[in-house]
Amino acid sequence: MSAAVSPLAPKSYPAMPALRGVRMATAAAGIKYKGRTDVLLMVFDQPAAVAGVFTKSKCPSAPVDFCRTNLSGGIARAVVVNSGNANAFTGVKGRAATELTGKSAAEAVGCSTSEVFLASTGVIGEPLDATKFAGVLGQMNKEATGDFWQDAAKAIVTTDTYPKVSTRTAQIDGVTVTINGIAKGAGMIAPDMATMLSFVVTDADIAAPALQALLAAGVGPTFNSVTVDSDTSTSDTLMLFATGAAREDGQARIEHADDPKLSAFRDALNDLLKDLALQVVRDGEGARKMVEITVTGAESDAAAKTIALSIANSPLVKTAVAGEDANWGRVVMAVGKSGELADRDRLAIWFGGVRVAVNGERDADYSEADASAVMKQQDIPVRVDIGLGSGTATVWTCDLTKEYVEINGDYRS
Amino acid sequence: MSAAVSPLAPKSYPAMPALRGVRMATAAAGIKYKGRTDVLLMVFDQPAAVAGVFTKSKCPSAPVDFCRTNLSGGIARAVVVNSGNANAFTGVKGRAATELTGKSAAEAVGCSTSEVFLASTGVIGEPLDATKFAGVLGQMNKEATGDFWQDAAKAIVTTDTYPKVSTRTAQIDGVTVTINGIAKGAGMIAPDMATMLSFVVTDADIAAPALQALLAAGVGPTFNSVTVDSDTSTSDTLMLFATGAAREDGQARIEHADDPKLSAFRDALNDLLKDLALQVVRDGEGARKMVEITVTGAESDAAAKTIALSIANSPLVKTAVAGEDANWGRVVMAVGKSGELADRDRLAIWFGGVRVAVNGERDADYSEADASAVMKQQDIPVRVDIGLGSGTATVWTCDLTKEYVEINGDYRS
Repeated sequence: MSAAVSPLAPKSYPAMPALRGVRMATAAAGIKYKGRTDVLLMVFDQPAAVAGVFTKSKCPSAPVDFCRTNLSGGIARAVVVNSGNANAFTGVKGRAATELTGKSAAEAVGCSTSEVFLASTGVIGEPLDATKFAGVLGQMNKEATGDFWQDAAKAIVTTDTYPKVSTRTAQIDGVTVTINGIAKGAGMIAPDMATMLSFVVTDADIAAPALQALLAAGVGPTFNSVTVDSDTSTSDTLMLFATGAAREDGQARIEHADDPKLSAFRDALNDLLKDLALQVVRDGEGARKMVEITVTGAESDAAAKTIALSIANSPLVKTAVAGEDANWGRVVMAVGKSGELADRDRLAIWFGGVRVAVNGERDADYSEADASAVMKQQDIPVRVDIGLGSGTATVWTCDLTKEYVEINGDYRS
Repeated sequence: MSAAVSPLAPKSYPAMPALRGVRMATAAAGIKYKGRTDVLLMVFDQPAAVAGVFTKSKCPSAPVDFCRTNLSGGIARAVVVNSGNANAFTGVKGRAATELTGKSAAEAVGCSTSEVFLASTGVIGEPLDATKFAGVLGQMNKEATGDFWQDAAKAIVTTDTYPKVSTRTAQIDGVTVTINGIAKGAGMIAPDMATMLSFVVTDADIAAPALQALLAAGVGPTFNSVTVDSDTSTSDTLMLFATGAAREDGQARIEHADDPKLSAFRDALNDLLKDLALQVVRDGEGARKMVEITVTGAESDAAAKTIALSIANSPLVKTAVAGEDANWGRVVMAVGKSGELADRDRLAIWFGGVRVAVNGERDADYSEADASAVMKQQDIPVRVDIGLGSGTATVWTCDLTKEYVEINGDYRS
């Protein structure tokens, strides 16, 4: 982790409760870093249902390939995550490393390799020496304990300036279940150092297909609505596990995602995913400001999201935010370049509560002083109304600062 | 213009010959700047054939709308270009300003408003006071002279650190014709200050439809293959005029773009467009290095270009270049995020002559010292072979530096 904590970091961290059915341990395997933990083992003593979503990169890492294959079985018994090396773009050596790690974890935990899931984050293109895991996983399984979430979050970070944790509870048919999650990520996303990884576990008893449907729906307005720099990692991984331990309290297994009993759980899960996703943006490399961009009045929700991401990924919008400049002209530019239907003369733009443009021109009543005051805030809401339909979307990003250039220009040298 | 000239600026500028059939004058109309010219008038005493390509923005500026309408007539008699105000996102006031400017120019030159073309660059969202042109265009028409290209280039710049000019000659059926061009642009493209504008004139006699076909084909591998920051202006304008003065030397009018007599002219035009486009990249805001990215072995030429632009627009690739870091992992990332077909295990990557990756992993013979030496160059060639087909493309970009953030974060404040 970097020394200076992001000014946007949460002011406090939740106490993370132990969660029935999962045990964890970390170790210092010496993959790259000295004097810190770099491997996390999660163990499910009873088979857990599993769901996952992964990077859309056409050049995914070896662990992503490994997870995609095992996901079809729907059962997890172990998860191994390492930082320091992404095992990406490592050719046949990468596949061999995932096979060896899977085998080592299966032996340590006593399961099939098809019940093991892997994630790696760190330097790309360097072979990963998986024999380092083989030596530590057995002992880790013996030590693994339930009350370990903060330590788990710390073991998987790279350029993050703080560990990311979140917890929620919900009722399913009168039974209280817990959802715990950890995440890492600071760029969106450098394959070198800032892949986004997140692991979420619940003690609810939910079948894998239902879990997958919940996760696939939940990721859209959360992890898939944040961007730091528009770059997509080879290794992005978000997994959701259900240990089913709430059976002990009488929770009947949920088989379908559209089961009305899931309503509160779905809300809690989505809230937790959003919390973790925003923690990633708030730790964006070099970030000094967080921007929430809401687009309304687009042709469709999908069009609204495309426009919102075009604004969020524009270097000129992001540098303007860094400069505390209420530069709505650059917002117009980003709307125009998105390719989605827009009518210049119907656009309206707000920074915070200040409407700066309306009907395709500067708002005659707009006060530069009021707009500047909004830009001095740490969290800046931007709203654009396209004026054509009812499509809406909200995305989050951070500003583009000299520190971002420094972090990413100086890293390997 | 900025005070410090880009280190990537051309070492010398060509002597720009006068070109028969076009006269030019500049003036200081006081649109925004003090103590510099900010209006350019080009006059064609005989009707010139005209072609144009414009921004793909869905929110184009009022002058772009004006030009698109007049282009169908195929005839130009006057061009008015101003810097300091983009007349973009100015609503009905914007249209009124273009109508007044068109009328003023038509009166000054003695032509129809449908034979006038306009371009504006500078601040967005501020109403443009077109009455300032009305007062100066008549006198400008009287003073306009043929030997004025360098001055013309200077009047249209904004954040550029040097004026951009280029000249070529070619033979059409044994008659020598000249092509002169000017351009401005330093971001790709901030609506505030760095819209790309370019005006190219030839004394060849070529019909408007043929001219349009030549320009549309020529822009693909030149102006449409350069990027500074992936941002697209509301105002990008590239126009090509043919005065037809070479008729005096016996050049017979060319009616069709596929006329074999155009072969040398086409080459010279494309060469000039490439020269001007690269001058824009070399003046990229904050740029210290120029990067030429060539993609080979893609499924198609279009796929190769998408991949090349994904690499060229990646903030992480561009910051790595700024840091003189041969960070091929980020190149892999950018290939993967492009969405085009790629096979991780067939990729090969070169920096200059140094192959750093092959068959989806680090080249075992690669020397970090040799790669670092390439990264210290001012001009850096990057080649990626996808290994799937025969599609190729080359694009050009510059590095992303702290100065870019400074220029664009500090501009309005």
